Amino acid sequence: MTHHKNANSRIPAVAVLGLGPMGRALAAASLAAGHPTVLWNRSPDKAAPLVARGASVAATPAEAARRASVVLTCVVDYEAARAVVAGLASGSTAMVVNLSSGHAAQARDMASWAAGQGIDYLDGAIVTPAPTIGTPAASILYSGPRALYDRSAIVRESLGAGVYLGADAGTAAAYEMALLDLFTMCVGGLAHAFALAAAEGISPEAFARFARGIGHLLPDMSDRFADQLSTGSFSADVSSIASAGSAIAHVRAAASARDLDTAPLRAVQSIIDRAVAAGYGDDSYARLAQSLSSVGRTVTPIENPA
Amino acid sequence: MTHHKNANSRIPAVAVLGLGPMGRALAAASLAAGHPTVLWNRSPDKAAPLVARGASVAATPAEAARRASVVLTCVVDYEAARAVVAGLASGSTAMVVNLSSGHAAQARDMASWAAGQGIDYLDGAIVTPAPTIGTPAASILYSGPRALYDRSAIVRESLGAGVYLGADAGTAAAYEMALLDLFTMCVGGLAHAFALAAAEGISPEAFARFARGIGHLLPDMSDRFADQLSTGSFSADVSSIASAGSAIAHVRAAASARDLDTAPLRAVQSIIDRAVAAGYGDDSYARLAQSLSSVGRTVTPIENPA
Ligand SMILES: NC(=O)c1ccc[n+]([C@@H]2O[C@H](COP(=O)([O-])OP(=O)(O)OC[C@H]3O[C@@H](n4cnc5c(N)ncnc54)[C@H](OP(=O)(O)O)[C@@H]3O)[C@@H](O)[C@H]2O)c1
Ligand SMILES: NC(=O)c1ccc[n+]([C@@H]2O[C@H](COP(=O)([O-])OP(=O)(O)OC[C@H]3O[C@@H](n4cnc5c(N)ncnc54)[C@H](OP(=O)(O)O)[C@@H]3O)[C@@H](O)[C@H]2O)c1
Repeated sequence: MTHHKNANSRIPAVAVLGLGPMGRALAAASLAAGHPTVLWNRSPDKAAPLVARGASVAATPAEAARRASVVLTCVVDYEAARAVVAGLASGSTAMVVNLSSGHAAQARDMASWAAGQGIDYLDGAIVTPAPTIGTPAASILYSGPRALYDRSAIVRESLGAGVYLGADAGTAAAYEMALLDLFTMCVGGLAHAFALAAAEGISPEAFARFARGIGHLLPDMSDRFADQLSTGSFSADVSSIASAGSAIAHVRAAASARDLDTAPLRAVQSIIDRAVAAGYGDDSYARLAQSLSSVGRTVTPIENPA
Repeated sequence: MTHHKNANSRIPAVAVLGLGPMGRALAAASLAAGHPTVLWNRSPDKAAPLVARGASVAATPAEAARRASVVLTCVVDYEAARAVVAGLASGSTAMVVNLSSGHAAQARDMASWAAGQGIDYLDGAIVTPAPTIGTPAASILYSGPRALYDRSAIVRESLGAGVYLGADAGTAAAYEMALLDLFTMCVGGLAHAFALAAAEGISPEAFARFARGIGHLLPDMSDRFADQLSTGSFSADVSSIASAGSAIAHVRAAASARDLDTAPLRAVQSIIDRAVAAGYGDDSYARLAQSLSSVGRTVTPIENPA
């Protein structure tokens, strides 16, 4: 088998446990970079297209790990990841990089559980979609022992750009949660906006022409949030919280008139209303983050990413 | 006064009623393009910096309109716009372009009220932020009589690219509502995500580095929504609704643990949960728009934008 031939070469063998859209993308990138790649998935049928491209299949997570020096786990959540990694049992010398999503406390728990099992464990969080994997557009965050980050370098580089965020296993997950927060709200916004457009008789194509433009505003808005939150100056030269409150009230009325669920809009409006009630109506949007945050102004920057 | 000298020249005189951030941007673009520009605002103090750049000030909306051939109204909402335009009284021959935000029914009401008053009325909606006005990045939607769209061409071109959406005065507002729906959810997402990041000890700058990346995903996601909604095929090759549901549950747990308001996340999660319950868990995100929409598959495209 290929992996035996290559086991001691410069290109480490990789095991990929979990073959959802992301696991398949990881496996494809690993194969494309020339790693002997062994697959395991709870439902075995998903491996076939990758086997056609040179991957091998293992019957159990433990068997996959025995054939690899780096094990990537990418399943739906930490509970599933723990169940899969528990199967590696003792005797595995492969290090585990867990790329499944979850929050910081789950990552920390998994790291200390793994330590108790004698497993070399690095936590990771993929913050770009599956099609970016193996391309320069990929972005993957890691936290945990620096030595394991370094030991996995060749494998990591096959997947995409990595950022090391420090020794606390929970940090990558903490970033991931905040990024998923933004991402999920954007997905919810897209779904709601396309639904409202449809209800108004606007075709998806006609709407997308302009929706793209809203997307293009986000990167600069992110930067403006960061600038204003760090300087503590919330000048509404572009638009004010009060104006946004008035706009969202119109959108709610439009959505209600079309029998769409207005809960997402109401939830955002209540954040705006609270900021206005607190006297921030004439400030910029970035003030909303501050008035939402339980920690307010006392943000402590973490160790600067490498 | 300048406007008298230019009244019959090729560069029409413009009145701007309303000097919030957007009204000021419109007035600045009008001045920059060489239009004699007359200003009115409920609170008169906001005109000063524009007067220094050559604008004149009128004591009432009617006086401003008498000195201009195109009146731009840009105030907080239709109620305020109606109050302002009501002040034009009879005898004004200037056409009115109302760029204040509101929903389609409000735009239609205002158009028929204006018709009853003998006012030439074009409805508009600005779908890019104030700093874009007068630059190629601006995008302004119009609907109402084609002849008025044409008559306002020189003025419109000084403000930015315009798109004519048809004779129904409500169409520009309908697009604006759906775009504001997306925009507001993104702003809410940014605020919530920066708050969660802060609560996890992540500095605004460190977070913005990655938040930009989420922003960059939106234009393509919009296109994917449009493609999938028009073809009716919701392949989850990138990520599934069920996976997003699992992710958002982690984000909620993280936000809750930090005492942040989870209402926006819960609202989006409930959209996801309903789609999963309806059997769409293995579909792509675009299916969420369809399962939210009261009109479902029967989307009727409107007259294609010019
Ligand atoms: N897709 C993306 O673009 C993307 C982007 C960033 C991060 N992520 C993260 O990457 C992870 C994987 O995502 P995904 O999109 O590939 O699909 P997913 O739907 O989140 O996860 C599917 C995978 O999890 C496995 N699984 C579920 N429960 C399991 C259990 N109890 N035991 C063992 N395996 C179990 C599935 O196995 P079966 O095939 O047997 O069901 C499948 O391999 C998630 O945490 C996700 O948040 C994904
Ligand atoms: N700012 C942006 O980037 C942006 C982008 C797209 C669309 N828009 C839309 O453009 C419109 C104007 O927005 P904005 O950002 O300039 O500020 P805004 O805060 O929405 O509106 C402020 C303007 O409305 C006036 N106003 C409020 N109530 C009034 C009333 N009852 N009678 C007369 N005037 C009244 C204010 O006068 P005072 O100065 O006397 O209070 C001020 O001129 C809004 O509909 C907004 O949704 C804005």
